[in-house]
Amino acid sequence: MNTGIRIQQRALLNAFIFFAVVSFGASAHAAAGDQDLIKKAGQVFGPLPQSMPTEQNPITPAKVKLGKMLFYELRISIDGTVSCAKCHPVSLYAADGLKKAKGNNCKENPRNAPSIFNSAAQISAHWIGNRTSVEDQAKQSVTGPPAFGMPSYESVEHILKGMKGYVALFQDAFPGEKDPVTIDNFAKAIGAFERTLVTPAPFDDFMKGNAGAMTEQQKKGLKTFLDTGCMTCHFSPYAGGQMYQKFGVFEPYWNYTKSEKVDDGRFAVTKKEEDKYIFKVPVLRNVSMTPPYFHDGSVDKLDQAVWIMAKTQLGKDLTKQETGDLAAFLSSLTGRIPDDAATAPILPAME
Amino acid sequence: MNTGIRIQQRALLNAFIFFAVVSFGASAHAAAGDQDLIKKAGQVFGPLPQSMPTEQNPITPAKVKLGKMLFYELRISIDGTVSCAKCHPVSLYAADGLKKAKGNNCKENPRNAPSIFNSAAQISAHWIGNRTSVEDQAKQSVTGPPAFGMPSYESVEHILKGMKGYVALFQDAFPGEKDPVTIDNFAKAIGAFERTLVTPAPFDDFMKGNAGAMTEQQKKGLKTFLDTGCMTCHFSPYAGGQMYQKFGVFEPYWNYTKSEKVDDGRFAVTKKEEDKYIFKVPVLRNVSMTPPYFHDGSVDKLDQAVWIMAKTQLGKDLTKQETGDLAAFLSSLTGRIPDDAATAPILPAME
Repeated sequence: MNTGIRIQQRALLNAFIFFAVVSFGASAHAAAGDQDLIKKAGQVFGPLPQSMPTEQNPITPAKVKLGKMLFYELRISIDGTVSCAKCHPVSLYAADGLKKAKGNNCKENPRNAPSIFNSAAQISAHWIGNRTSVEDQAKQSVTGPPAFGMPSYESVEHILKGMKGYVALFQDAFPGEKDPVTIDNFAKAIGAFERTLVTPAPFDDFMKGNAGAMTEQQKKGLKTFLDTGCMTCHFSPYAGGQMYQKFGVFEPYWNYTKSEKVDDGRFAVTKKEEDKYIFKVPVLRNVSMTPPYFHDGSVDKLDQAVWIMAKTQLGKDLTKQETGDLAAFLSSLTGRIPDDAATAPILPAME
Repeated sequence: MNTGIRIQQRALLNAFIFFAVVSFGASAHAAAGDQDLIKKAGQVFGPLPQSMPTEQNPITPAKVKLGKMLFYELRISIDGTVSCAKCHPVSLYAADGLKKAKGNNCKENPRNAPSIFNSAAQISAHWIGNRTSVEDQAKQSVTGPPAFGMPSYESVEHILKGMKGYVALFQDAFPGEKDPVTIDNFAKAIGAFERTLVTPAPFDDFMKGNAGAMTEQQKKGLKTFLDTGCMTCHFSPYAGGQMYQKFGVFEPYWNYTKSEKVDDGRFAVTKKEEDKYIFKVPVLRNVSMTPPYFHDGSVDKLDQAVWIMAKTQLGKDLTKQETGDLAAFLSSLTGRIPDDAATAPILPAME
């Protein structure tokens, strides 16, 4: 072996060592960064549960089976066109793609329909705290004038009692009750079904330690989410739903949204001046898949919604890069829909 | 063994022989009756196919996948609330339970929405022959004023082209086409999906030779169906859908239905006097599950609809027993919905 070749070999070896050290250093650094991010994310969000039962409404297979059927039931609305699934269709991640939900006889609801996925563990249902739980929401919907529009709870019970299939299912779901076809059991059954609707996402895989489950841009967006202050309100496994907050802390929201009118928010419920423009912080699970955004659906694009949020809530003027990164992170919250949730139930025949 | 006991034994033996002969005779008789009925049913109806492709629109998995998504697509309607699935929800056996279908902005359609199950092999779609096929129906619906209400085919293509997810699916479904996102391919994809929607029922099991698949009353009803003349129009594996017929051969239909107005039927299409009150003979598959009945949904109960049919079409005044038997037979046409049909597809996000 001549000197020239030996020098070449040494040069190659040096190059190898150099690259190996650099790569190893980088990946060790990346791994440490990922571990740090996973840890921080775990502290803010925490693991998504498999379901969201409560003591008042434990989940049972019989309740879920009935609740799913009732979720799809159209014949208990005043014009026969409204079911829970109308405003929460699985195909659009259980939101409806409209600015504001449309109920019976095309009546417009006051606000945007939120997704029903991952929604049962919030402090309240809907936007302004006038629905205490998913059960309360199901119950109030049937007589809500722009929702199902039925004249009374009794009229709903009457229709359900007229179908033998339902009577048997209520008996199964609420064993031992003499007259189980009641509006409260209706609400409990739908609630039990909704409490199963959890959609684990790549972000959850990441939080479990699989650093490769998120792209580099998604991770960058997560860092920005944590560093900018979004997580002050959007925390918990649902990235929201745990508190009320003024929409427009730094500036009125309508300076930036395309709102057609100003919504007083929770003031409508409490009549307290300090509740003006207060809304529930929405859950961000599947947010990429459920435009348009905000309580009035006035913004179509996610990156624009993100920019408006930072501007009005945090007084920050995000760059295009930052809003892009944040939108990328939010897309990692798009989850897997449970098979059972995606299968339409067959309803009893009208007799 | 004493004589008394021997006589008792002989009496028992005689009794056994007597009952054995009677039972065997009866079951042989029943079996012969069933075989005869199975044979006759086979001649009138024939076996239900596994799917209903045409030469113009062969079924491919890629077309079915896309077609099913388009079937659930709401965002191609003028008010964002209408999809094929709105008037054909799986949960109600792909009919909508209304007298007349409701389209965009709650506009009422002129007639009752027929089930889309087992419907693709008819002479035409809908009631009066103004939709030549399921593909033609899908295409015409999007611009139909009381249906999707879109201003043009181009406006639908524009929305679909705006979602990358759809562009890729059209490319897969129509390989080699330079610009596959067209309204005609939209129609073909939905048609291909609908051509898979076949629901085999207990009646099919019976026709295959399983005499126990139908109850005695259902068999009695089938005999009545064949003997009374119902099968003159309601033949083929779909028990209908193969011809037009005047509604009111013996008497005007509105003498018995609760119709709010007289519908001229196919006259609206051809303007020929002889086409007045002519409608397509509807498919009877799943008819028990899809009230209300007739082109205007003016009758709620199946036994009443059966009675009116015999009266107006055959000039026969059926007894309560006969209408009950016929309704029982029709319930044997309630089929099993294919798993794939019952699963909601997840749609691409709006970009």
